[in-house]
Amino acid sequence: MGQVNELILSKAGSNVELIPEIAKHLISSGGKRLRPMLTLACAEMFGYKGDGHVTLAASVEFMHTATLLHDDVVDESDMRRGKLAARKLWGNQASVLVGDYLLGQAFKMMVDVGSLEALRILSSASAVIAEGEVLQLGAAKNITTTEQDYLRVIEAKTAALFAAAAEVGPVIADQNEGMKLAARTYGMELGYAFQLVDDALDYGGSSADLGKDVGDDFREGKITLPVVLAIARGSDADRVFWKRCLEGEDVADGDLEEAIGLLKKYDALSETVDRARTYGDNALKALEALPGGAHNDALADAVAFCISRVS
Amino acid sequence: MGQVNELILSKAGSNVELIPEIAKHLISSGGKRLRPMLTLACAEMFGYKGDGHVTLAASVEFMHTATLLHDDVVDESDMRRGKLAARKLWGNQASVLVGDYLLGQAFKMMVDVGSLEALRILSSASAVIAEGEVLQLGAAKNITTTEQDYLRVIEAKTAALFAAAAEVGPVIADQNEGMKLAARTYGMELGYAFQLVDDALDYGGSSADLGKDVGDDFREGKITLPVVLAIARGSDADRVFWKRCLEGEDVADGDLEEAIGLLKKYDALSETVDRARTYGDNALKALEALPGGAHNDALADAVAFCISRVS
Repeated sequence: MGQVNELILSKAGSNVELIPEIAKHLISSGGKRLRPMLTLACAEMFGYKGDGHVTLAASVEFMHTATLLHDDVVDESDMRRGKLAARKLWGNQASVLVGDYLLGQAFKMMVDVGSLEALRILSSASAVIAEGEVLQLGAAKNITTTEQDYLRVIEAKTAALFAAAAEVGPVIADQNEGMKLAARTYGMELGYAFQLVDDALDYGGSSADLGKDVGDDFREGKITLPVVLAIARGSDADRVFWKRCLEGEDVADGDLEEAIGLLKKYDALSETVDRARTYGDNALKALEALPGGAHNDALADAVAFCISRVS
Repeated sequence: MGQVNELILSKAGSNVELIPEIAKHLISSGGKRLRPMLTLACAEMFGYKGDGHVTLAASVEFMHTATLLHDDVVDESDMRRGKLAARKLWGNQASVLVGDYLLGQAFKMMVDVGSLEALRILSSASAVIAEGEVLQLGAAKNITTTEQDYLRVIEAKTAALFAAAAEVGPVIADQNEGMKLAARTYGMELGYAFQLVDDALDYGGSSADLGKDVGDDFREGKITLPVVLAIARGSDADRVFWKRCLEGEDVADGDLEEAIGLLKKYDALSETVDRARTYGDNALKALEALPGGAHNDALADAVAFCISRVS
């Protein structure tokens, strides 16, 4: 990971001052580097000896960072990982453009590695992520979003990059389709688990743990699984409440507390965490098809870490 | 070009409704398709027989379209090619995300073609374009921008994509370094000419010709070559005027007319067009190193077309 971090910092450089400034703000603000870790472990577990996995891991983190920059603009977020969001410090304009720059750098780095298959996997993920974000934009103001709709959103916007990050490991290590599929499945299931835990934390975690304010999703009118479950089980009066807050974005003092109360009343938070655990178990199952050893253990720890954030 | 247009429309498709809606709005709104034409001509002039050039041409147009979507958000533009800008119709959020989607699709299509060298050229262009836009963001509010600063901006934000679009032609047609350099130089010089003509048109063309309001650059506080030249030659009183309008973005009725008057007084528009002609001549010179025939003629016509927009 040390090499990945070095590469990330050097490739975030540019003669245009604002670029490294913003990139370093984000990169040094304590992201978990979960995605690049998947790429490293999924290559090294096959005894891969080159340095292409480090470059791919750094590209994956750049893709993720670019997404964060654009997301904050789209969601009009004020905070990111407990710090002011880049857009609050440098403006929306710079956030959009520096995101574009990081995406361009990510592709350049992938090209350096020279694996067309890894390029195909990561460029597809890039299009799918954007598709997921557009989908979420449509769902954001619609309380009739179903659980299935929502799972489609998070598969695209979160799980797809986890899946791609893991899959390029066996790809670059020249493994067979079975190994690629196992790594991809592991990443995909972990991605679902990760996102559902995030969704639950947004209503249940403490501000300090989350690194951003609790209730961001609520205030931004985002429909997440806890809300979908609570609405499905709630009364008509509840629906009026959710409609006002989420579709109308008309949130008054005390509404977040009422929302959390409803989520607890209908077990929506605990059930969201239960589903995250199920996805985590699926991820662990996929690991059984992959070589055992220290890297496999690290990937299992990543699953435990994701779930532990909420329990 | 028919094949390019078909591919563009099919690859702009998505199950997420908003994406084809926005993409088609932009794609069908009468762009000149200059960049993809360069790719096609620069491949076909070498007798290239595959269909990779069509795919690369479509990717180049997608990269360009993504840039337009993000630019309009960054510049807070209301109009684009005489129509309401996408961000006015669907919002900034959708414009950012659909731009990201098109960029992802562009990379996927390039990967389909399978030329790592073309991928390297186009992904580098993508990072350079974003760098140029960030650079322009910094220059936008600074009337001490020099001619050299400005040329650096347009090389990155405009000429680099023209250069890449042309260079991938001989690359995919397996030509030698000399041919690649000639095509790249042609594209780069044409790109400079194109941007300078655009800059002059923003102060001198009629609204109908330009497809967007005259004075957009002025109202957005953009420092372009005509302004750089006029400021260098102007009085202290002129500088106070430019500072108020461009740095302060404090533009009142009659200011645009006064700006145009100053640009004419100091021959700043005609000189900008003269420089565009010089770049155009350089582009024609680069063509001499490339094979003659109908495709070479079409590339020469593209230069004449660019210049003719303003004269």
